Parts: sequence; C-alpha cells; structure tokens
Amino acid sequence: MGKSAAFEDLTPYLEKISALNTTQVLFGWDQETLAPKEAAGYTAGTIGILSGLYFELVTGAKVKKLLQRCEKEEALTELQKGIVKELKETAEKLECIPAGEYKEFAELTAGSARVWAKARQENDFASFAPVLKKILAAQKRIASRQAKKGQKLYDVMLDSYEKGFDMESLDTFFDSLRRELIPFLKKLTESGVQIEDGFLTGDFREEKQKELARFFAEYLGFDFNKGVLAVSAHPFTTNLHNHDVRITTAYSDHVDDSLFSVIHETGHALYELGIPDELTQTLLGTGTSMGMHESQSRFFENMIGRNPAFWKPVYGKMQETFPEQLGGVSREQFVRAVNRVRPGLIRTRADELTYSLHIMLRYEIEKMLVEENLEVEKLPQVWADKYEEYLGVRPRNDSEGVLQDIHWSQGSFGYFPSYALGSAFAAQLYACMRKQMDVETLLEHGDLAPIREFLRKNVHQFGKLKTSRQILRDVTGEDFNPDYYVEYLKEKYGSLYGI
Amino acid sequence: MGKSAAFEDLTPYLEKISALNTTQVLFGWDQETLAPKEAAGYTAGTIGILSGLYFELVTGAKVKKLLQRCEKEEALTELQKGIVKELKETAEKLECIPAGEYKEFAELTAGSARVWAKARQENDFASFAPVLKKILAAQKRIASRQAKKGQKLYDVMLDSYEKGFDMESLDTFFDSLRRELIPFLKKLTESGVQIEDGFLTGDFREEKQKELARFFAEYLGFDFNKGVLAVSAHPFTTNLHNHDVRITTAYSDHVDDSLFSVIHETGHALYELGIPDELTQTLLGTGTSMGMHESQSRFFENMIGRNPAFWKPVYGKMQETFPEQLGGVSREQFVRAVNRVRPGLIRTRADELTYSLHIMLRYEIEKMLVEENLEVEKLPQVWADKYEEYLGVRPRNDSEGVLQDIHWSQGSFGYFPSYALGSAFAAQLYACMRKQMDVETLLEHGDLAPIREFLRKNVHQFGKLKTSRQILRDVTGEDFNPDYYVEYLKEKYGSLYGI
Repeated sequence: MGKSAAFEDLTPYLEKISALNTTQVLFGWDQETLAPKEAAGYTAGTIGILSGLYFELVTGAKVKKLLQRCEKEEALTELQKGIVKELKETAEKLECIPAGEYKEFAELTAGSARVWAKARQENDFASFAPVLKKILAAQKRIASRQAKKGQKLYDVMLDSYEKGFDMESLDTFFDSLRRELIPFLKKLTESGVQIEDGFLTGDFREEKQKELARFFAEYLGFDFNKGVLAVSAHPFTTNLHNHDVRITTAYSDHVDDSLFSVIHETGHALYELGIPDELTQTLLGTGTSMGMHESQSRFFENMIGRNPAFWKPVYGKMQETFPEQLGGVSREQFVRAVNRVRPGLIRTRADELTYSLHIMLRYEIEKMLVEENLEVEKLPQVWADKYEEYLGVRPRNDSEGVLQDIHWSQGSFGYFPSYALGSAFAAQLYACMRKQMDVETLLEHGDLAPIREFLRKNVHQFGKLKTSRQILRDVTGEDFNPDYYVEYLKEKYGSLYGI
Repeated sequence: MGKSAAFEDLTPYLEKISALNTTQVLFGWDQETLAPKEAAGYTAGTIGILSGLYFELVTGAKVKKLLQRCEKEEALTELQKGIVKELKETAEKLECIPAGEYKEFAELTAGSARVWAKARQENDFASFAPVLKKILAAQKRIASRQAKKGQKLYDVMLDSYEKGFDMESLDTFFDSLRRELIPFLKKLTESGVQIEDGFLTGDFREEKQKELARFFAEYLGFDFNKGVLAVSAHPFTTNLHNHDVRITTAYSDHVDDSLFSVIHETGHALYELGIPDELTQTLLGTGTSMGMHESQSRFFENMIGRNPAFWKPVYGKMQETFPEQLGGVSREQFVRAVNRVRPGLIRTRADELTYSLHIMLRYEIEKMLVEENLEVEKLPQVWADKYEEYLGVRPRNDSEGVLQDIHWSQGSFGYFPSYALGSAFAAQLYACMRKQMDVETLLEHGDLAPIREFLRKNVHQFGKLKTSRQILRDVTGEDFNPDYYVEYLKEKYGSLYGI
C-alpha cells in the first residue's frame, strides 16, 4: 500500500466530518428514546449549529483543495479512492446550498417532527400543512440546486437514497407490482380463506415481551456487548460505529408487533455490526443505501422470521413465555397467523404481501407533490382515494391516513421507495442464497451462522464501497430484477391461501 | 441596550463552542447510562476529535481577534462582557496547551475510566497505576503551562474548579475541620449512643424504589418535562441546557442510598433548571463552580432531606410504599437512622458528619501528589494510613481504598475539595436563609417553594455571572466563612447524640 501525502492531509478533516456525523446520530437517538418533552426547541438549535459546522467543513476551501490533490494522487488505495469519491459527491451536493439555507433547513426539520406528532395526535392535518409546505418547498429548492442538467427534481431525491434508481426504473418496478399484486390480492381476499390470529392480541406482559425481544435479537446474532435495545414510539436502528449499534422497539398488546420489529431491526443491526473495522468511522463505513439496508431487515423479518422452519426450534420459547396465551396454539397455527394477509390502513402494521402497495401509493403521491405540484392541502383526499383503490380501505381520519408517517416531516422525500426496493432486493438475494444452501434445514437446526455469513461476505463487508446495484450484480450475477420478488410473494401466499 | 458589531461577529463562534460543549455532555451521559460495553474505544476517538475541534475554535486566531475587538467595545451589555471574559479565560487556559497534547489528553482520559473500573473490580491498583501516572504527569504539565508567574501547580488546579480558592484558603478551611471535627467525632463514637438503622437494608423492590425516586424528585421541584431520571453505576447530574437536565441514581438493597442520591442530584438539577433562558446555551449558562453546585445538592440532601421536619408530610409515602419494611418504624426512628454517624471507608456512602473528612484526606493526598512528588505506587499505603488516622478504619484492599473514586482516572485533580466547600457553602447559605424564613415550618407544611425561590433568586439565576465567593458575599453579607459549617454540624450531631 502506497502512502499519499494528500490523503494524510485530508485525514483530520475526514475525522472531524465523521465525528460530526456520529454526533448527529447520537442526538437523533437521544431525542427519539429519552430526551424530555420540552427539550426539543433548545436542542434543535444545537443540532442546527452542528449541521452548520459539518456544512462548513465539507464544503470548505481547504477540503476542496485537498480533494483535488487526492484525485491527482496515484498512490491511493481502493478504500482511500472510495472515501475521496464519497466526500466529493457529498461536497458537491452540499456546496450548491447556501450555508444559511442549509442551517435553516436543519433547524426547520429538527422541530417539525414535533409539529407532525402533535397534528397526528390531534388528528389535525391542517396544523401540519404549513410546515409540510415549507419543508417540501425547501427540499425542491435544494434538489433544483443539486440537479444535473435536465435532471428532474424527484430523480435527484430518489438518487440520494438509492444511487442508480430514478423514476424510470421505479415506474417499471411499481408497474410490475401494480399489475401482478393488485389482482393477486383481490383473488386472495375473495378466496374466503380465513386465518385465525386473535391469539396474538391480548395482555402480554411488557417485561415478558422484553425478555423475548432480547432472546430473539441474540438468537439472530445481535451482540449486546456492541449494542443496545431500547424503547421508542417507532422502532428504528442507528449506530455510532460498528461497535455501537442500537435498535428500538415498542411494546403493545399485539405480541407480534414488537417481536417482528425486533427481528426487523436486528436485520438492520447485523448490517452495521458487519461493517469491517477498517471501514467504520469512515465515510464508507455504513450500509450502502436505504434500500440495501431495508433488504437486510426485511430479509430477517420475512424470509427468516415468518418462515415456518424458523419457528421449529424456538416456538417452544414463545409458549414457555406466554403459556396462557399460546399454550394451546400449535406452531402451525402461529406461523399461519403471523403470515396472515389483511389489507389495512397503516403501513407499519402491514403484512408482507400488501406492504409494498402502501409504498407504491406513497411513491405516486411524492411524484405528484414534487413533479406535478399537487397542493399540500389536497393530500388527505388523494391519500384516501388511493387507499380505497389499491387496498380497498378508506381512512376515517388523517391520523390513520396521511399523517401516519414521520418521513415527510423530516424532509425525506424519495425515501419511501427504498422500503419496497428493499423487499425486492431481499427476494433476489434470497433466491441466490437458496441455490447455495438449504435455508430451511439450517433454520430447523437453529443454525443461522451460514445465513449471516452469506450476507456478511456478500453485502455487509463492503459498506459503501459498492452501490446496491453493484452488490446485486456481483452476488446474483444479474442486475436488479423485480421478478424474484413478485414470484416469491405469489408462491408463498398462493400456497398459504391455496389460490 | 447597545448593539455591538464585534459581539455579533463573535456570536457564531460562541454558538459553535456552546454546541460542542453540549455534545460532550451528551456523549458523557450516554457513556455512563447506556452505551454498550465494547463501544468505548471507538467512541473515545470521536470524543477526542470533537475536543480537538473545540480546542481549535476556542484558541483560533479568529476568536482571538474578535475577543480583542470586543474588549474595546463600549456597547457591550453586562452579560456580553461576562461571556467575553469567560471565553478569554478559557482560551488563555487552553492556548498554552499544544493542540496535539490537548487531543491526546482527551483520548487518554476517555479510555482511562474503563481501566480504572476494571482495576477496581479486580482489586488491582497496580494495573491502574501506569495510567494514573500518565494522567497526573499530563495534568501537571498542563497546569505548569497555565500557571501565572510563581503560581503553584495545585493552586492552578484548585482555581479551575473553584475560582478564588487556593491551598492557603483551603488549608485554613481543612485545618478548622481537622481541629474541630476529629475530636468531636471521637467524642461521638465514644459516647456509646447506638442508633438502629438495620431496617434501611433489605429487599426493597427496585420498581418501588423507582416510584419513590420519581416522587421525591418531583416533590422537591424537579420537572420531568424538562428532565430525565436514569440509572448509572454512580449517580450524577448533567444538562444539555435549562430545558434538559438529567439525573441518575443507582438502586441497591439500602433504600436510603437511592433515596438520598435522588435528593442530592435533584439539588444539582434545580440549579441548572434555575438558569434563566437568556443565559442557557451561553458560556455563562451553568452553575458557577463545582463547589457552589455541590452546595445546592448537599443543601437538599442534608439540610432538607435529613431534616426531621421534611419527613412530617412525606414519611407516610415511604411507609405506604414499603409497608413490610417500614410499617413498624416510627418517623422519629427513621429520621435518626438516616442521620446515623458511622465512620467508614467509602466516601459516597459516608454520613453527613464524616463526609468532609474523606475529602480532607483526599485534599492532603492530592497536594502530596502534585506538590511533593509522592510516588503513585505509594498511594495505597498513604491512603490506608490516613483513613486509619482520621476515621479509625483501614481498607482491607484497594477497591475499598484508593481505587474507590473515578475522579483521578478522569484527570480531575483539585476537584475533591469542592465537595467539602459545597457543604460549607450550604451551611453558610442555610444560616442566612433561616434568618429570612422559618424553614422547619415550611417543611412541615410541604411548602418548598419559598426555599427554592431563595436559592433561585440568590444563586441559580446568575449562572456564571458571579463566582461562588461573590454569591456568598452578596447573599450573606460576608466572605466565605467555614465556621457556619462546623457550628451546624456540632449543633446537629451534638443534639442527636446528646454530647
């Protein structure tokens, strides 16, 4: 390995940038899990200032010069080249935004989640609409600055979460879901097949649920010496580095809610725990994209956690923990129940089959907001109509409708499609994995190590050195192909529902 | 109020400095309460880098010039003048330390608490000694750089925690404690009076203790909308700003441990909650010194929490919560028990009377380490001898001896005396308060508002605008006077033990 003077000079800046990133992670974690109610306003100021500091560093003249020097160096390692490329892209995206505007946006979104939460609680979209308008306008302004010549604004947003994806590829993807899954769902709901799942709801003591949450996280490979499990309103995963990965869940009277949340978040966590030491705390030391991250969580949640074979060694643990509620429920009944399809209003409670339809609808609405100037005031109506059309259910109010997700309040337009892409990536990876190992037998023996190792070797270890498309190509030998996903769903649910 | 262009130019720097301070607070909180075991090493790197960023900002040429400009301005408000003075002093203390050394020290101390904790757990001073030597050497090097001409190193350290105090004034203070309290304690222990306190130890359910902790924190005035109560190995208070103040406690089978910890930390918390909005998030927006902070916590812990009148309205709550353990214990018995004097080995478990003797001993040892080059290897011996001399007890091992406190592992030499000063400040303030109100009657009626208001008005509201000595002078009309403390203790414990 050669040594590059330019890269050495860049290193202190890289360290600071990475430290400031970590700081934002910690503030975010703290706010979601613990911070007192009235702290948010003042803390938002601090977060805004730290964002400004980050902005100044990344877009500063010194970093610019050092990047230019690095690009001319021949002695850079692949990792160093990757870091330089990543920083350059980040800088280019940021430097077209005036510093004041950047800080203002950070402050705006730091406070807006509270406005959203209150609006949702009070079922009052009108009180959130003005903030949402501001955020949307700001995001469009930012995207227009970042856009390459002729690039559409929503394409800029999509690319920032999932490099290499745009409206063209996503239209193809969602068209295929619309074409295949809507009629399939119709057939399924009209089949008259009823799956009993009432036993999943009841008085499941929180202490016991916590015990199970820890058990399953560890069973899947979560390392509590390098991680934390806490409670937050909405489950999420975050990490300071590969030795500090944190997941949350929420406990309710639906035992499967926290259970599958934990399995899902553990999938995310394993990705971050699988980042190698030489990558962590660098700009490449995290999952490569939202979609690839979601592929890991959905893989564990659905392909593993809802797999009949998975439950063979561990269903006993469930029954032991909740003998009153589950003692009389057979493993087969339980597995059918956690796979039950039920078109509903709430994305986060959606079953595996209908989940992507919730996303498709959000994708269409975001496109309308960004590209077709749909008025924010019309959102509740458009939202309700689409739910009725695709899922056959209509929200009775904004809280169970357009106000259900936090994302837009944080300025995350273009993020939603990653959820559906993640499921599709997972299906493509799963198809490939099954050619190399007998996943069901491994699960039946409680031997998850080869499965984790497949993901570590093929996905986790690269951090951001490869894009999601590159990973798919290198592992599966073909470009992203949504057919695997559609086939997987139709096969699984066709068989479950006998259609 | 005039407007100062120079101060306006300084403001973005002040904001960043304050944001970085807040960041260090949050990382510290997180590490003590939650962070996973193996995270520390990597996180220490991040903390070190953020310290470096702070260092660069505070000591940078731009800030220096702006400070010079501000000092020439006439339009500054009192607050602005105070901020400029504070920043200048901070900068002067830092700029004599080379940046590399500063960062190295931050990294050294970020990791050293773990080494100390392990040594303590394994009762092995030898494994901690090399780290301690490094830290001591670094602190002496730093102090020698910061020293004014002819100033002794330990005086530099003392001043950094308690402005205006040095070995001369502390020798006088501790001489008075040694002269008055050692014979008094001897008389007390030889009196043969026995106070029963066995009922304070037992199987007190943690959930119930938590309930009490919240109850007493709120009863004293802690606002859970602006604060958090969590668990950590050693209780502490920290704050992001005046709308986010956090306390911790630890639960054990001694019910009084967590109880008085919470009362103590609530005293600290009320100080920070009492900082006005215009001061918070500025360099003056926190308690003025360690000693004055400790005066607030000790005031609530001892003058209030161990006051017989305090328990009149709330002892019933204790009995309700623990009917089995305390149902048959009268209020008088309980109050006597929580005031029992028992010379022991562990500072944090010391009673009110002997507490300052633990500090006196540490003060003497620190003086020897810093000024008389006492070898670190000899610490266990010196420590044990002094405990035997002053308190009549000798540690059987390092864990209950020289390894018991975290402070030195963090480089905090000169910090300990603040604990004793705090108690003495509290006694002086208490004497003054009693001239203005009938504290006992207020406590008997559960009316703590006038007591809090006295402290808010006379202490809290000034933040760092006044030093602890100035506060004492302005409130009590005289300079710091340790006699109040000695008198208070002798009167209280003389009466309790009938001596």
